Amino acid sequence: MYDIAIIGGGPAGISAAINASVLNKNFIWYAAAPSRKVQRAELIKNYPGLPEISGKQLEWALSNHAASMGIEVCRKLVTGIYPDERHFTLIAGSDCAEAKTVILCPGVQAADPIAGEENFLGRGVSYCATCDGSLYRGKKIAVVCTDGAFEGEINYLLGLAKEGIIVPLYKNCGISAPNARIVVKRPCEIAGDSRVRQLKFRDGAEDVDGVFILRGSVAPTTLLHGLETKNGHIVVDRACACNIAGVFAAGDCTGRPYQYAKAVGEGNVALHSAAEYLDKLA
Amino acid sequence: MYDIAIIGGGPAGISAAINASVLNKNFIWYAAAPSRKVQRAELIKNYPGLPEISGKQLEWALSNHAASMGIEVCRKLVTGIYPDERHFTLIAGSDCAEAKTVILCPGVQAADPIAGEENFLGRGVSYCATCDGSLYRGKKIAVVCTDGAFEGEINYLLGLAKEGIIVPLYKNCGISAPNARIVVKRPCEIAGDSRVRQLKFRDGAEDVDGVFILRGSVAPTTLLHGLETKNGHIVVDRACACNIAGVFAAGDCTGRPYQYAKAVGEGNVALHSAAEYLDKLA
Repeated sequence: MYDIAIIGGGPAGISAAINASVLNKNFIWYAAAPSRKVQRAELIKNYPGLPEISGKQLEWALSNHAASMGIEVCRKLVTGIYPDERHFTLIAGSDCAEAKTVILCPGVQAADPIAGEENFLGRGVSYCATCDGSLYRGKKIAVVCTDGAFEGEINYLLGLAKEGIIVPLYKNCGISAPNARIVVKRPCEIAGDSRVRQLKFRDGAEDVDGVFILRGSVAPTTLLHGLETKNGHIVVDRACACNIAGVFAAGDCTGRPYQYAKAVGEGNVALHSAAEYLDKLA
Repeated sequence: MYDIAIIGGGPAGISAAINASVLNKNFIWYAAAPSRKVQRAELIKNYPGLPEISGKQLEWALSNHAASMGIEVCRKLVTGIYPDERHFTLIAGSDCAEAKTVILCPGVQAADPIAGEENFLGRGVSYCATCDGSLYRGKKIAVVCTDGAFEGEINYLLGLAKEGIIVPLYKNCGISAPNARIVVKRPCEIAGDSRVRQLKFRDGAEDVDGVFILRGSVAPTTLLHGLETKNGHIVVDRACACNIAGVFAAGDCTGRPYQYAKAVGEGNVALHSAAEYLDKLA
């Protein structure tokens, strides 16, 4: 049982992890991938103490800080969080872990969930290539993907499936396989009966046996049922506490301004609030 | 008329100033002195991006960031803020300035105000040696001082006054002048009639003509009447907005945790909120 589970590899998650380590907490830190958003920033002028740096340099400075403290990161995507009476169970691919508190730092979703996504989760919708890929051996799948970082997973899926409709929601998709067809359109609905049957676009549909959605993070409300959000942001108080006891959130997910300094500040505050919450539990 | 007046030289104030510069705002940044609190930190492990640095190094990194952007700091203590219909007048020593918004980053007060302090302000109580020193030529004064950084001002006052009772609220007071008497006690009240007559301690009192109080910052509620505080902290919402429209606060003054990352995060948020407020005014 961990004291704290931190979810997210951006500045807020890194800040929370650094503070968890300083406070000597027993914690697990999930980050499916380093923050692409930070890496892509051309020039950052307002991260206090590091004037005029590129996004890559900031990402390195933050990751290196955590690494220099011996903090390990679990490179798995958390796909579900289930609250129990006094703890939370976290599902990450085929693994699960338990923690007394959770700090959510998933960033802001680049896109809204697809209609039907939540409804068909576990009935043809999957977030995890390595967990569920083998279920689609010889079948026809669609893969909706938000980031080139996940192309390795797409290739893995294409090695198993008979046919793959690849829907990249990013530029310069590098996938080319004889059984793959690239569709550059926004998916608008996942449809079916007891299971997924179709991925729909505005101007047509593809019949499929399953839909993989590869994102850096799962929408917080899909991740944790009952989590209060407003206009797409997780609602938190000044202590970064969410509406569910023991759950805290930090960074872009809590709202504007989308700023690195705000994110590291909230990562710090959320961790301290979680520590205080744990003290009261004890 | 400035768009924004930022008050405070610690991490929150520096962060606000950096962001004001990035957003091209017309602003004035007051900081009576660099943050002693930061400078004194032995080892800081949790300022993300700068692992294992001393307080002096962090203070340098932050100040240097602002300086590298050509940001100038006004080394004056703001002693009063007076709201008008659509702007604020700020008094700093013998200067005054006008601004449409104010960002308060004064840190937390090391000590509560002294009883009577506010009541006798301008009637024998002064926060500014250079502004009011000449009024006490040949008289007997008390100087209550929270930081060795202000000993230059004490010596200036001792050069004017006939006699000075020096009350250092810090260790290793370096004042030694023939007309000075060091009193190592906590003052508990400033008393008088139409003017200051006495500085009282628990076990006695000194008759004086005036009391100088030399602190790095003036208590926010003394600075700005009507400002809402709770348990010694300025009450702010998630946007760092105070109860008075156009006034924002950031850093330790808004409450725990007293952390550098929180302070720079709030400095960033407060500045963005002020910018949004200005957009609505326009």
